[in-house]
Amino acid sequence: MASFSGYNPQSHSPSPSAPPMPNPQAPSSSQPHYSQPPHWHGSSYGHSSFPPGTHPDVIRSFQMVDRDRSGYIDEIELQQALSSGYQRFSLRTIRLLMFLFKNPSSPLGIGPNEFAALWSCLGQWRAIFERFDRDRSGKIDSMELKDALYSLGYAVPPSVLQVLISKYDDRSGRRVELNFDSFVECGMIVKGLTEKFKEKDPRYTGSATLTYDAFLSMIIPFLVA
Amino acid sequence: MASFSGYNPQSHSPSPSAPPMPNPQAPSSSQPHYSQPPHWHGSSYGHSSFPPGTHPDVIRSFQMVDRDRSGYIDEIELQQALSSGYQRFSLRTIRLLMFLFKNPSSPLGIGPNEFAALWSCLGQWRAIFERFDRDRSGKIDSMELKDALYSLGYAVPPSVLQVLISKYDDRSGRRVELNFDSFVECGMIVKGLTEKFKEKDPRYTGSATLTYDAFLSMIIPFLVA
Ligand SMILES: [Ca+2]
Ligand SMILES: [Ca+2]
Repeated sequence: MASFSGYNPQSHSPSPSAPPMPNPQAPSSSQPHYSQPPHWHGSSYGHSSFPPGTHPDVIRSFQMVDRDRSGYIDEIELQQALSSGYQRFSLRTIRLLMFLFKNPSSPLGIGPNEFAALWSCLGQWRAIFERFDRDRSGKIDSMELKDALYSLGYAVPPSVLQVLISKYDDRSGRRVELNFDSFVECGMIVKGLTEKFKEKDPRYTGSATLTYDAFLSMIIPFLVA
Repeated sequence: MASFSGYNPQSHSPSPSAPPMPNPQAPSSSQPHYSQPPHWHGSSYGHSSFPPGTHPDVIRSFQMVDRDRSGYIDEIELQQALSSGYQRFSLRTIRLLMFLFKNPSSPLGIGPNEFAALWSCLGQWRAIFERFDRDRSGKIDSMELKDALYSLGYAVPPSVLQVLISKYDDRSGRRVELNFDSFVECGMIVKGLTEKFKEKDPRYTGSATLTYDAFLSMIIPFLVA
C-alpha cells in the first residue's frame, strides 16, 4: 500500500510519509507496532481474513470482541478491541476511525483487513506522538502538534491549528494539551481533509475547484463522525 | 439585516430566505418569535446594548445568566439563557451557535446584540420545524428534513443528507428522527457551510476555487464546534 505523503504545495522538498489510509482491497504492507517479527496468522475467517504477517495479538483483539464470529465488528466492539492494544478511545474518535477505515462496500462494520490496517496506523501515530512529545509530558501541546503535522508534510496554517486545538480547551485557563486519543482525532481530521483536497488537486497547485455537491460530500462525513 | 437566501445554482426561481446569520454591527430587523408587538427595551448595558424592539423576555433571559453584568455570556450561560425560551440544547449545538453568532472581535462571549439575533433565529427555526413536521410526531424525519432544507433553498444532495442524518441514528433500528436540538444543529451546519461556499461562488455558478488554506479554514471551525 502506498503511504500517504503530505500536502505542502509551497515546499519543494519531498514530504515524509504520514500513517497510511486503509486500502481494503490490498493487504497492508506496513508493520504492526511491535519490534518482534510478526508471524503468519492469515486464516479464512468470516467473509474475510487477516493479511499475511498480522501479529497474533491483533487477531486475538479482534476475535475477542467479534463474539458471533461474523467477521465484522461495530463501533462499540472496535472501542473494546483497541483498548487491549492502545487505550479506550472516545466514541467520537472511534466513529472517525470507523468512517476512515470502513470499507464502504461492507456496511456490516470493520473486517479483519481493515482492523489490521487501523491497528498498524495507530501504531504509527503512537510513534509520532512519542517522538514529538519533546518535554515528555505525556501530552502534545500546540507547538508539538504543529511540528508533528509539519513533519508529516501537512502545512496547516497557524490560525487553523489554533481553532483545531481550541476544541480541546477545558476552559481551566491552562494551556491546551492533547492526550493520545485527541491527538489521533486531530491528526486524522487533518490527514483526512488533506487527502480529500488532494484528490481535487492532483498536481499540487495549492488550489482546487469544487462543486457545491462535492464540497458538502467531502466535509459532512467529518462533521458527523 | 439582509436575510440569507439559499443556494441552488440549478434553480432559477428565487429562493425563500433562511433564518438570518448574525450581523453584530447592525441591529436585527427580524421579529422575535412572539405575536405581541415588541417594546423598546434598549438600554446601555455592559459594553453593548439590545437592539430596539427586543422583547423583554429576551433581555430578561440574558440578564438572568449574566450575573456579573459584564455584558457577555459564555457557552454554559448561553445554554441556561436559551432554556428559558426554548429548551436545553446540547453543548454541541450551543458551541456551534456560539461559533456562528459570536462577534469575532469580542472574545468575551455573546453580547446583547448577538443574543437577540440568535434568539430570533431560533424562533425562525422553530417555525420551520413545526411547519415541516407534517405528521405532527414532534420530530423531523429525513423526508421532512429534505423538504425543510429545500424550502429554504438548500439543494443538499440526497447522499449528503443521508450521511448527515445518520449522525443521529441511535442504532435502535428505528428510522432516524430529529428533535429540535438536532434539527437546529443540522440546519446550522448546512446553512453555515453553504454561506462559506457562497462567499467563494458569488455568481452562483455552482462551483468554487479554493486554496488549501481557505478550504481548511472554512471547515475546521465546524468540526470543532
Ligand atoms: Ca508534551
Ligand atoms: Ca415528523
